Amino acid sequence: MKPQASGAEVAAVCARIESLGFRAHAMPGAQRTAIGITGNPGPLDPELFEMLPGVAEAIRVTKPYKLVSREVKSEDSLIRVRAIDEGAAEDVVVGGEELVVMAGPCSVESREQCFAAAGAVKASGARVFRAGAFKPRTSPYSFQGLGEEGLKILAEVRRRYGLLIVTETIDPENVELVERYADILQVGARNMQNYSLLRRVGRSARPVLLKRGMSATLEEFLMAAEYILSEGNYNVILCERGVRTFADHTRNTLDLSVIPAVKTLSHLPIIADPSHGTGKRDKVTPLARGAVATGADGLMVEVHADPDRALSDGFQTLNPAQFEALMGQVEAIAAVLGRRTARGAARV
Amino acid sequence: MKPQASGAEVAAVCARIESLGFRAHAMPGAQRTAIGITGNPGPLDPELFEMLPGVAEAIRVTKPYKLVSREVKSEDSLIRVRAIDEGAAEDVVVGGEELVVMAGPCSVESREQCFAAAGAVKASGARVFRAGAFKPRTSPYSFQGLGEEGLKILAEVRRRYGLLIVTETIDPENVELVERYADILQVGARNMQNYSLLRRVGRSARPVLLKRGMSATLEEFLMAAEYILSEGNYNVILCERGVRTFADHTRNTLDLSVIPAVKTLSHLPIIADPSHGTGKRDKVTPLARGAVATGADGLMVEVHADPDRALSDGFQTLNPAQFEALMGQVEAIAAVLGRRTARGAARV
Amino acid sequence: MKPQASGAEVAAVCARIESLGFRAHAMPGAQRTAIGITGNPGPLDPELFEMLPGVAEAIRVTKPYKLVSREVKSEDSLIRVRAIDEGAAEDVVVGGEELVVMAGPCSVESREQCFAAAGAVKASGARVFRAGAFKPRTSPYSFQGLGEEGLKILAEVRRRYGLLIVTETIDPENVELVERYADILQVGARNMQNYSLLRRVGRSARPVLLKRGMSATLEEFLMAAEYILSEGNYNVILCERGVRTFADHTRNTLDLSVIPAVKTLSHLPIIADPSHGTGKRDKVTPLARGAVATGADGLMVEVHADPDRALSDGFQTLNPAQFEALMGQVEAIAAVLGRRTARGAARV
Amino acid sequence: MKPQASGAEVAAVCARIESLGFRAHAMPGAQRTAIGITGNPGPLDPELFEMLPGVAEAIRVTKPYKLVSREVKSEDSLIRVRAIDEGAAEDVVVGGEELVVMAGPCSVESREQCFAAAGAVKASGARVFRAGAFKPRTSPYSFQGLGEEGLKILAEVRRRYGLLIVTETIDPENVELVERYADILQVGARNMQNYSLLRRVGRSARPVLLKRGMSATLEEFLMAAEYILSEGNYNVILCERGVRTFADHTRNTLDLSVIPAVKTLSHLPIIADPSHGTGKRDKVTPLARGAVATGADGLMVEVHADPDRALSDGFQTLNPAQFEALMGQVEAIAAVLGRRTARGAARV
Repeated sequence: MKPQASGAEVAAVCARIESLGFRAHAMPGAQRTAIGITGNPGPLDPELFEMLPGVAEAIRVTKPYKLVSREVKSEDSLIRVRAIDEGAAEDVVVGGEELVVMAGPCSVESREQCFAAAGAVKASGARVFRAGAFKPRTSPYSFQGLGEEGLKILAEVRRRYGLLIVTETIDPENVELVERYADILQVGARNMQNYSLLRRVGRSARPVLLKRGMSATLEEFLMAAEYILSEGNYNVILCERGVRTFADHTRNTLDLSVIPAVKTLSHLPIIADPSHGTGKRDKVTPLARGAVATGADGLMVEVHADPDRALSDGFQTLNPAQFEALMGQVEAIAAVLGRRTARGAARV
Repeated sequence: MKPQASGAEVAAVCARIESLGFRAHAMPGAQRTAIGITGNPGPLDPELFEMLPGVAEAIRVTKPYKLVSREVKSEDSLIRVRAIDEGAAEDVVVGGEELVVMAGPCSVESREQCFAAAGAVKASGARVFRAGAFKPRTSPYSFQGLGEEGLKILAEVRRRYGLLIVTETIDPENVELVERYADILQVGARNMQNYSLLRRVGRSARPVLLKRGMSATLEEFLMAAEYILSEGNYNVILCERGVRTFADHTRNTLDLSVIPAVKTLSHLPIIADPSHGTGKRDKVTPLARGAVATGADGLMVEVHADPDRALSDGFQTLNPAQFEALMGQVEAIAAVLGRRTARGAARV
Repeated sequence: MKPQASGAEVAAVCARIESLGFRAHAMPGAQRTAIGITGNPGPLDPELFEMLPGVAEAIRVTKPYKLVSREVKSEDSLIRVRAIDEGAAEDVVVGGEELVVMAGPCSVESREQCFAAAGAVKASGARVFRAGAFKPRTSPYSFQGLGEEGLKILAEVRRRYGLLIVTETIDPENVELVERYADILQVGARNMQNYSLLRRVGRSARPVLLKRGMSATLEEFLMAAEYILSEGNYNVILCERGVRTFADHTRNTLDLSVIPAVKTLSHLPIIADPSHGTGKRDKVTPLARGAVATGADGLMVEVHADPDRALSDGFQTLNPAQFEALMGQVEAIAAVLGRRTARGAARV
Repeated sequence: MKPQASGAEVAAVCARIESLGFRAHAMPGAQRTAIGITGNPGPLDPELFEMLPGVAEAIRVTKPYKLVSREVKSEDSLIRVRAIDEGAAEDVVVGGEELVVMAGPCSVESREQCFAAAGAVKASGARVFRAGAFKPRTSPYSFQGLGEEGLKILAEVRRRYGLLIVTETIDPENVELVERYADILQVGARNMQNYSLLRRVGRSARPVLLKRGMSATLEEFLMAAEYILSEGNYNVILCERGVRTFADHTRNTLDLSVIPAVKTLSHLPIIADPSHGTGKRDKVTPLARGAVATGADGLMVEVHADPDRALSDGFQTLNPAQFEALMGQVEAIAAVLGRRTARGAARV
C-alpha cells in the first residue's frame, strides 16, 4: 500500500482479496502497510489489485515462503511485546533501535530462585525474563518443569520486577495454559517443525519466539515462521541457538551468519542465544558480543543466582556478576551500531 | 526373571515394585520376561528383589535409557503387529526371522492410487502398506494429506489386500483418530523429540514405528524410544531414514552403521527407509540391499504405480517393476543372513 | 572410438588432438577405447574429430570433471594391478567380476607381525596386503611408521605370500621411494586435496587408491581423481572410508550411498573401508556386508594377528578369526550380485 | 622460567634437556620464557628441572598437544612479523593490542590489479597484503596462479606500499621459493593435515598462518600447529575460515566459538577470514564485526578493485569502498575491546 493509504483503503483491499476466496494478511510497518495473500492455488494477475485505491504495487513472491519475505514487506517488522497483566511491565519493541535482552534461569525451580535471578537481570538491563515451566528433556526421567505452578511464579516476577515473560510451550493443548501467564510464547528448537504447534501459536494473540532447529536450513527456519504468520500471527521473533555439526569444543555451533542472511530475506527480527549456542559458560560472553556485532536484534541468556546449583544447564549459565559484565560489553558494542540497551536507558 | 518363572511370580514382582511407589514394566521375551523399574529417584538395592521367587538377577542399568536397553532385557524384542480389523490381514512379527517390508506411496491421494500401489507391493512380498493421510510438510501451502478420508482408504486397503497399515500421526490430539484405522502408528523424523506425542503413543495399544530425527544421535534416538516405553508401550520399531550432513549427492545420508549400534545397545528391532534416506530413486535399491546386509529387520520403501504423477516425493519413489526387482535382490541377500521375506513364503 | 577401431586409428586421433595443442587421453575399455581431451581453453567443434577414421562420436562433457566421467567413457574401467616384482603375485583386476579384498594391519610394525597377518588374510581370500610404512598421524609425537624399512618388509610379504601390496605415500618427494616397493599407491583421506601429491601420483606407472576426504563432496572426490587422470594415470581406484558428521556412535559415518552415486557419474571402480569408516571393531563386519551389497567393487579391512597389541588403530582391527567370518559372509553376498572373491576361487 | 631468569639460565636449562636426549623449545613471552620439552618417551620427573637456576616450576602437560598449550606457556604469544626486504614495511605484531588486518585479492592476476588493491587496502588500514601466487584449486583445469611471477609482484607491492606479504605455499618443495618473497607463509585449509608441509614450514624462519581445515576439530587444529612448533618455529598464527556443515545459506559456517576456545587452551593468536568463512560478499562485513567482537586478533579479507572481474572468488570479494566501510566499523568495535587498528594509528 502507499504510505498515505488510509485504514479504509487497507480494509477494502483485504475485503477484495477475501471476496476472491483467498486470505488477506495486513502487516503494518513504520511507513506503510503490506498485505500478503495466501490460499491462492496459483499466480494471480497483479492488475486485479493494482487499480484499487491506495495500492502502491502488486508483487508476485518468488520464494517458497511468502508472508515472512521481504518481497511482501520490505520494511523491518517491529514486534511490540505488551504485558498481559496491564501495567505490570513496560512495552518492549524487538527489531528496532533497542537491543532487547531476555535473561533468566533455564527452569523455574522456585519463587526464591526466580526472584533472585530476576532482580539481578533487571538491574543489569534485561527487559524480558526467561525461564521454563515446561521443559522438553531428552530423558523422560529428567526434571520436566513445575508446570502451571511455575507459570504462576513467572507472573509474580512480571509484577514484582517489571519484566516481561517469555516461556516455552510444548504442544498445542498446552498453549492455552501458557498464554494465560506469558507475554511471549517460546517454541523450542526441537519443536521447530512441530507444525500442529506452529499453527496453534499462529492463532494466538501473543508474540512468538521461534528457535531454529538443530539441523534446520535457513529456508526451513523461515518456512516454520511462515506457518505461524499464515495463521494470522505476524509477531514472530526468530532466534539462532546453535546448530549441530561435527565440532566438539562447544555443545552446538552458533551460526551467526544466519543473522545477516535472515535480514536479507525476511523482515522479521532475529536474536541469538549464546547460552545454548555454545553450551559452555566461558564462551557465552564472547559470543554474545559477536552476535550483537553481527547484527542480532537481541539476546537470550541463561542467568542463575547460583549456577552450580541449577537443576538444568548449570554449566552454560552465568552468575549475576558475569551477566553484568556481559551487559556492559554488549551495550558498548550496540552503541557502535547505533543501538542501545535498556541498561543504558536506566542509567541516563 | 528366570526362564521358568510363572505368570504369578512376574505379577508378584511387579506388585512389589509398585508397592514401593515405582513403576514396573514387564516385557516378555522368547525365553524369559524382563521387568524394568522406573520412577525411582536413585539407585535401588538389588537385594530388594533378588530374593523374590522367580527372579534370576537384579541389574542396575548404567545407561541413561533403561527400558530400551539390553541391560534390562538381553533378548531381542519381537514386535507382533495385528490387524485392528480382525482377520483382515495376517499378523507380522518384526525383529524375528522374517524381514518385514513396508511399502506404498508417500501420501494417500485417492482410492485408485492406493489400490494400484497396494496390489503391486502385495504381489512383490510387502506385508505392511505405508501411506500418509496426515503429512507434515515444510510449507504450510503444500498438500497436507487427505486426513480421515485418507485413513478410511487405508482401512479398505487392509481388508482388500490383506496388508497391515502403518501411517503417520502428527500430534497428541491426532493419535486417537489414527488409532482407529492404523495397525502401526508412525512418528516421523521431525517429531522424534516431540515428547508430548511420544508420551501419547506410549499410552496406545498400537505398535509404534519411530523414525530417527535428522540430526539425532544414537543416544537421543534411544531416549525418544524410552519415552514411549516408559508409558507402558513396549512395542517400538526403530527406523533409520538418513541424517543431515554436508554431503549433497543424496538428500540425506543413510547411516547404516546405526543398525549394528542399536542392536548392541537395545533389544528393539530396527528397519531402514532407503527412500527418504537417499531421496533419489536410483539409489533406493542399492541401499535397500545394503541395509538388509547390514542387519536391518525390515525396510520401508516408497512405491507408486506412477511415481512421476505422485503429489509428493515422486523423485524418490519406485514404480512396481523397480520394487519387484528390489524385492528379488533383497530376498536373496536376506537368505544369506538366514532370513526370509513374505515374498519367498508366498511362492513356496 | 568405434569398437572395431584399430590401434593406428586411436593413435591418429590422439596425434590430431596433440597437433591442436591439446592433450589426448586414450583410455581403453572392454569394448572400445575412449579418448579424452584436456587443455582446451573452451568448447571445441565436434566436427573436428567426428570425420576421423574410427571415431564413433564426439561428446562435449558437461561436468566439471572430464576424464573420470561416464560421458567420456561409458564402460566401467577395469584396473589391472600387477606385481612390480614380476611373478611374485597374481594380477588382480579391480572393477570386474571379482570383489577384491585388501587387508592387513594399520602399520608395518615388524616382519613377524606382517607375516602373521599376511598368512591369515591370504588364507581367507584377500588378494592385496595393506599396511602403512609412512603414517600421517594427528600428533607429531605418535609413531610415524617404519619408513623404507617397512617398505622392505612389504616387499617380502609380496614374494612370500603372493599378495599384492598397497601402502600410503604421503608427499610428492616420497612417491619415488614408495613406487619402488608398492604395487598400488595409496593417497590417504587427509591428502585427498593435496594437489601436488595428486599430480605426482598422476605421473606414476602404479595404480592409485584414492581415499575420500573426511568432508569431501562427491564432486570434490571425483575432481581429486581428475587431477590424477589429467596427468596421464588412468588407473585410479576410489575408496569410501567414512565422512565426518555429528553422529558419535561411530568414529566416522560410512556413506555407502556414494557407491551407486559414483557408478552413475564415473567409470572408475570404488571400494569401501569399513574399518576406518566405523572405527569400531564390532561394526566392521556388518558394514562390510552392507558395502558389498550396495555395490562396492572391493573392501579394505584392517586385520592384525593380535589387535589389542597393535601400535595404532587396534580398536577397529579384526583378528584372523573375525576376518575369516567376514570373508565367508561377504563371499555369499557377493554371489547374490553375481560376483566372486578369491576365497571362492581358491576353494574350487 | 622465573621472570628474572637470565638468558644464560635459559640456555643452561635447554642444554640440560638436550643432554638427556630430548628437545628443548624456548618460547619467550612478555614476562617470562617458557621452555617446552619434546622427544621424551614418557613422563619425566619434574625434580630433574626444578632445582636448576631460574626455573619457576616444571609442569607435566596433560593435553595431547604440548608446545601450543597454555599449560606450557601461560602468556599470550606475540607473533612479530618483519619484512624480509628490510625496511620495506613496518613490523607488525599479531596477538597484541593491535588488531591486524590482512587484505587483498584472492589471486595475483597482474601488477596493475595488485597495485590497485594494495593502494586501497593500505589506505583503509590493512597492514598485510594477501594474494595467492600458488592456488590449490578443486579443478585441475582452473587457473592455478602465476607462480614465481606472482611472488615477484608481491615483493613489489611490499616495497611500494609498505605492506607485509602473506601468501600460500602448497607443498614442501614449494616452501623455499615462497620463503624468498613472503613475510608470512600461509598453509591453506586443504593442507591443514599435510604433515610434510607442516614439518617443512616448521623449519622455516618465517611466521606461519595456519588455516583451520574444513572439518577439523579444535584438537586437530591445535595438533596441526603443534607439528610446526615441534620443528622449532613458534611463530604460528591460527585462522578460522569456516567449517563444513549442512547449512547452505553460506558456503561454509564460520565458527566464531573457536576463537575463545583457542584462547583458553593455547597461547597462539587467532584471526578470522569472513570472506572464505561465508563465501558471500554481503555477509563479510557483519561477520568481520562479529569476529572482532568475539575476540579475534585480526582479520583476513578478500578485496579487489573490481571484484566482478576477479579470476577467482569474486562473489565473496569486497570492493575498496566496502572494505573502507568494514574497517571503519571494525575499528570502532575493536576500540570497545581496548584494541586498535593501523587505520586509527594512521589518522592520529
